[in-house]
Amino acid sequence: MKLTDPTQTLAALIRCPSVTPEEGGALTTLAEMLDRLGFRNDRVTFSDEATPDVENLYSRLGSGGPHLMFAGHTDVVPVGDEAAWTQGPFGAEIVDGEMYGRGAVDMKGGIACFVSALARLIERKGAPEGSVSLLITGDEEGPSINGTEKLLAHAKAKGESWDAAVVGEPTNPAEMGDMIKIGRRGSLSGTLRVDGVQGHVAYPHLADNPLRGLVMLADALLDPPLDAGNERFPPSNLEITSIDTGNTATNVIPARTTARFNIRFNDMWSAETLADELRARLERAARQAGLRPGRDPVRYTVEFDQRSSPSFLTRDDALIDALSEAVREATGRTPALSTTGGTSDARFIKDYCPVVEFGLVGKTMHMVDERVALSDLESLTGIYELFIERWFERQRSRAG
Amino acid sequence: MKLTDPTQTLAALIRCPSVTPEEGGALTTLAEMLDRLGFRNDRVTFSDEATPDVENLYSRLGSGGPHLMFAGHTDVVPVGDEAAWTQGPFGAEIVDGEMYGRGAVDMKGGIACFVSALARLIERKGAPEGSVSLLITGDEEGPSINGTEKLLAHAKAKGESWDAAVVGEPTNPAEMGDMIKIGRRGSLSGTLRVDGVQGHVAYPHLADNPLRGLVMLADALLDPPLDAGNERFPPSNLEITSIDTGNTATNVIPARTTARFNIRFNDMWSAETLADELRARLERAARQAGLRPGRDPVRYTVEFDQRSSPSFLTRDDALIDALSEAVREATGRTPALSTTGGTSDARFIKDYCPVVEFGLVGKTMHMVDERVALSDLESLTGIYELFIERWFERQRSRAG
Repeated sequence: MKLTDPTQTLAALIRCPSVTPEEGGALTTLAEMLDRLGFRNDRVTFSDEATPDVENLYSRLGSGGPHLMFAGHTDVVPVGDEAAWTQGPFGAEIVDGEMYGRGAVDMKGGIACFVSALARLIERKGAPEGSVSLLITGDEEGPSINGTEKLLAHAKAKGESWDAAVVGEPTNPAEMGDMIKIGRRGSLSGTLRVDGVQGHVAYPHLADNPLRGLVMLADALLDPPLDAGNERFPPSNLEITSIDTGNTATNVIPARTTARFNIRFNDMWSAETLADELRARLERAARQAGLRPGRDPVRYTVEFDQRSSPSFLTRDDALIDALSEAVREATGRTPALSTTGGTSDARFIKDYCPVVEFGLVGKTMHMVDERVALSDLESLTGIYELFIERWFERQRSRAG
Repeated sequence: MKLTDPTQTLAALIRCPSVTPEEGGALTTLAEMLDRLGFRNDRVTFSDEATPDVENLYSRLGSGGPHLMFAGHTDVVPVGDEAAWTQGPFGAEIVDGEMYGRGAVDMKGGIACFVSALARLIERKGAPEGSVSLLITGDEEGPSINGTEKLLAHAKAKGESWDAAVVGEPTNPAEMGDMIKIGRRGSLSGTLRVDGVQGHVAYPHLADNPLRGLVMLADALLDPPLDAGNERFPPSNLEITSIDTGNTATNVIPARTTARFNIRFNDMWSAETLADELRARLERAARQAGLRPGRDPVRYTVEFDQRSSPSFLTRDDALIDALSEAVREATGRTPALSTTGGTSDARFIKDYCPVVEFGLVGKTMHMVDERVALSDLESLTGIYELFIERWFERQRSRAG
């Protein structure tokens, strides 16, 4: 295998059926490539209650600073309707200039391009002066319990520290060069329960319909908007994801109903201030409901999930500029610096060092016939190679 | 058995376990009592698709006019948690002046009092000059498919016609003499479905949350009130009885959601005009939602159930006055003339003759330990006896 060719490194990874939590040979294949480039591999398996054991890989080239981390995952989501794939999901077949396979863009492709970029740089100039590490988990598409979070703590406990990190997730909505992610909105979920008094629809004065209250409380959650966003973040957004009553009797007013909701929030809020705001809105609406003639205040409880993630924004200009310049030089396009989209493992890495995200085009991720243009693989390999070079140059000139 | 004693006639009926659709001996027991009073019994069983066969009884005393109908049902709702009953639900035990048993007030009690009232009247003055009929079904608490509606058509086909009817359902909320029912609100049910576009909560601009639309449409259904009622009817009232989405994924915006609702409406509406009003409200709200920046009109469908019942109001002053005077004379209380509450078989009878409803106190109906005060049985028997006498007197004086 020619390590400088990303179609070869990617094909080798796609052919490992590593659906979470299976390693499927993917980490072994990657470790062998890195071994050939001079990396020192640390394979480690993590366990936790009620989740499967998952294998991980931390691999370092060099021993001094500065220290650049590349982070990602070799696990992939299930293939879905396998019969609907036009090419085998683990075959890495190339048709009309595109390589097919689960993980082609999310994100074995990102890993393959980074490996090939390093191989090219080493071939051309030798290893960078400093260290490059790969922090690769097999638990990103699953519960994310036995993955990046534990691997970071494990490496730190062994004395590792980093100056910057790039996550190789697909960040470009349509074309290579569209978008670098420099932070993420936070996520908070909650459950609203409204209690009423069950009764017959013909005697509403003897009952208290919780759905009447729920409609008012839901309206208070949705309006007005939480904020208008700012220059770095889009507006925070609340979505009600489910309302469920489960009352099958048309002539019965139900005793209670629940609603689930999720908020993606920007850096104008923490999970705590946001929960306070929503509690205040609910309390106000519940009391207002009680001001209507013949109505009582809405009786409700709201609970926020323990597992929320805060928003974060990366403020390392040297890191962002090195990556932006590499993208511009390789593609001729100026990438948007974005904080949109869902959560990623960057939410764990940000506690250790500045982190940005850039990878392939995400259009086919998680879909049947996930695939990547060979030209995109070449483009990303070039971008990563330029970026690694630029980043170490900037670190040296800053130190000098 | 002394037919003039309502505790004896009721005990005999309670001891027949006639949970819908079982006859349980109740109609046979009743037919035997009526036979002793000189009635001609017509037992008839009705069948329909997908519902159990049900037995019914039509029984007439006399052959000429005027013709008074008493209507009711011998079937009862299930006993519920039998272990929670302090007396057997089919034992007719008397404890502290109350007789216990399923159907004690709803409505074997009403039938027993009517039979005893007639027995007393016949003993005192002979049979009324005219006819008295009992129209008794075993399918009132069930689907109501093989009951009163078919029994009326069956009797009419045999040449029967009536001048007035009394339904013996429990109408008094707290005490004997509280309330005569002289009509009922109509009932209309419907299902509202809102369609959106499924997507990830982190990318709400690529999705369309149907719950956002539902909250707006539900608000339009609930406000403003449909009407303020009038002198004979309370306000029409809409209750949303269930909202269901069934989305268990907190990070997914669901594709659709549904709501069920029921309206109890007064004589200011028909099912058709009401459905038109609600359709107009939904259409207006759906379009208004589309005026908000970045939002489309709500995509929804609304379907109204085929089986609605119209409101009705009985306008026979002679009937209402005869019953009111009997109540006043027996109890010293002036009954409210009411159109509140749920539907009853009066909705079928009103198409044949003027109909009013008066019976026992409904407090324990459908509950564990359903029971009736013996003093209430005596009171209702007295009221029915007076009413029958007064009604025939008024018919005679009107004819003369």
